[in-house]
Amino acid sequence: LLIGAREDDDAAVWKAEPGLVVGTTDTMVEGTDFRSDWPGLTLRLLGRRLMSINLSDLAAMGAQPRHALISLCLPGALSMADVTELYRGISERAQQFECTIAGGDLSATTGPLTLTAALYGVIRPGTRPMRRLGARPGWALAVTGVIGRAAAGRVWRRRGQTPRTPAERRWIMAQLDPAPRVEAGQILSESGIRVAGDISDGLYREIERLLEREGLGAMLDADRLPLDADIRRGHPDAWSSRLMESEDYELICAASPAALRSAGQRLKRRYGLTLTIIGEVTREPGIRARVDGRLRPITSHGYEHFR
Amino acid sequence: LLIGAREDDDAAVWKAEPGLVVGTTDTMVEGTDFRSDWPGLTLRLLGRRLMSINLSDLAAMGAQPRHALISLCLPGALSMADVTELYRGISERAQQFECTIAGGDLSATTGPLTLTAALYGVIRPGTRPMRRLGARPGWALAVTGVIGRAAAGRVWRRRGQTPRTPAERRWIMAQLDPAPRVEAGQILSESGIRVAGDISDGLYREIERLLEREGLGAMLDADRLPLDADIRRGHPDAWSSRLMESEDYELICAASPAALRSAGQRLKRRYGLTLTIIGEVTREPGIRARVDGRLRPITSHGYEHFR
Repeated sequence: LLIGAREDDDAAVWKAEPGLVVGTTDTMVEGTDFRSDWPGLTLRLLGRRLMSINLSDLAAMGAQPRHALISLCLPGALSMADVTELYRGISERAQQFECTIAGGDLSATTGPLTLTAALYGVIRPGTRPMRRLGARPGWALAVTGVIGRAAAGRVWRRRGQTPRTPAERRWIMAQLDPAPRVEAGQILSESGIRVAGDISDGLYREIERLLEREGLGAMLDADRLPLDADIRRGHPDAWSSRLMESEDYELICAASPAALRSAGQRLKRRYGLTLTIIGEVTREPGIRARVDGRLRPITSHGYEHFR
Repeated sequence: LLIGAREDDDAAVWKAEPGLVVGTTDTMVEGTDFRSDWPGLTLRLLGRRLMSINLSDLAAMGAQPRHALISLCLPGALSMADVTELYRGISERAQQFECTIAGGDLSATTGPLTLTAALYGVIRPGTRPMRRLGARPGWALAVTGVIGRAAAGRVWRRRGQTPRTPAERRWIMAQLDPAPRVEAGQILSESGIRVAGDISDGLYREIERLLEREGLGAMLDADRLPLDADIRRGHPDAWSSRLMESEDYELICAASPAALRSAGQRLKRRYGLTLTIIGEVTREPGIRARVDGRLRPITSHGYEHFR
């Protein structure tokens, strides 16, 4: 329930709900996080993307989004129609996940378009947020949905060609308009999964985040990676570096194989999404993969945000 | 109670408190909201200012700050020591008001330094947030503390001279390092004041915000404005445009004269701050002032943020 709004007040007011609150913020800077000359990237898609990157952070913890605060820094070249398109995308994605746009701030900038959202979500009373910490050796790793599309989309975008097949359009959209796995995160959390992350910085980078601090490693099974079928057909080596960097907005989680199977059934039944076991957590640090029966260390990794 | 932190997770987790939540976000862009060549403006002061502008929004509603999410977009020229100084200022101001830095995001930018904070505060159960709406004709208008210092500081800064007297140093610091009236906002709210705003965009602009939408106006009494004593001595006409634009981080509120007197006594006793009645709310729109017994319309106004 949103009580106040920016028009009248300096801040938004809403009623607190019992339980735990999750807060997150992410910024997109033109030139760093996106380029306005990406073919097909409209301001509406950019607005959707701003929400998606933040919603994906909430999804990874199993939170239900509630309220967003938006701060836009706009170069002078942007028209009011442009800003309206941006907001249209922002509110579309927000509405889709029952998140209110509680308030915001508009600034002029002499620099690149800079978009920030701060999201505030809730954890259902009685459940705990999923965390990056707590994985154990012998547990399995599993990812939601299908991976590789965002990487394929990036390749297509770079070529600058018009997508013709349904697969090509799917890849382009996976890259331009990723959909956060908000419902999936909640279902995983309700199923008792405790360790999860989102792979929007790439599968490799996220596995590293889940395991490195624990001093653990991973053994992946290349044949089990849930690749987009058209990618697997077209690129038999697609599991390698490019896939590891693919910025798909899927979730990865770690738990006992039995817990993952049970969560997977629930996810399939309630949300129609697969949860695929892709490997296991090992005592030995580092990420390796079984490819055609041979062990290979994986060294490439996803895009690491500046920090 | 802050449970998670950015290092491990994509988001921060905290325990909800009963009552109302206030959320606000404000961004500072180099070149628009500040200039890095302002004499005396360090990165530490800039960090404090980022928090202060957001804390002032919470103060205006009578909220107690709780958690902040910080997003910094940094030009390549900034060193790690610079970023540390920024954070030092941010956390100093946060700690002063018992606000945790719950999480954040760092981005690289090819443009100007761009700093965003999103703050979450709570309204004490049983009390309501102060709003900009609801003023009535016949009510009085009152401001906390002393006004005019920020404008005087801006004049000094533009001259580029080194401040020598205590008054000059006070003015410079009012401009460089404004202190949000967080405690005062809570005391006003607890005293039953329902209509308030902060005058960090200037007294004129805020009076307009409080009254224009209600179709009301204000009659100010220039002799009653609580000017800094050294400004009044030095500039007998200081009540005029410059004062109206002074970006002092004080609060203005509207209520019956009796309610304001009672709130003022409480503010003085508990926080040592004066609350000065500066005029009244009129049915007639527009802002006018009584100066030396003559009525004058006021047309100048504070800095209006780009929107």
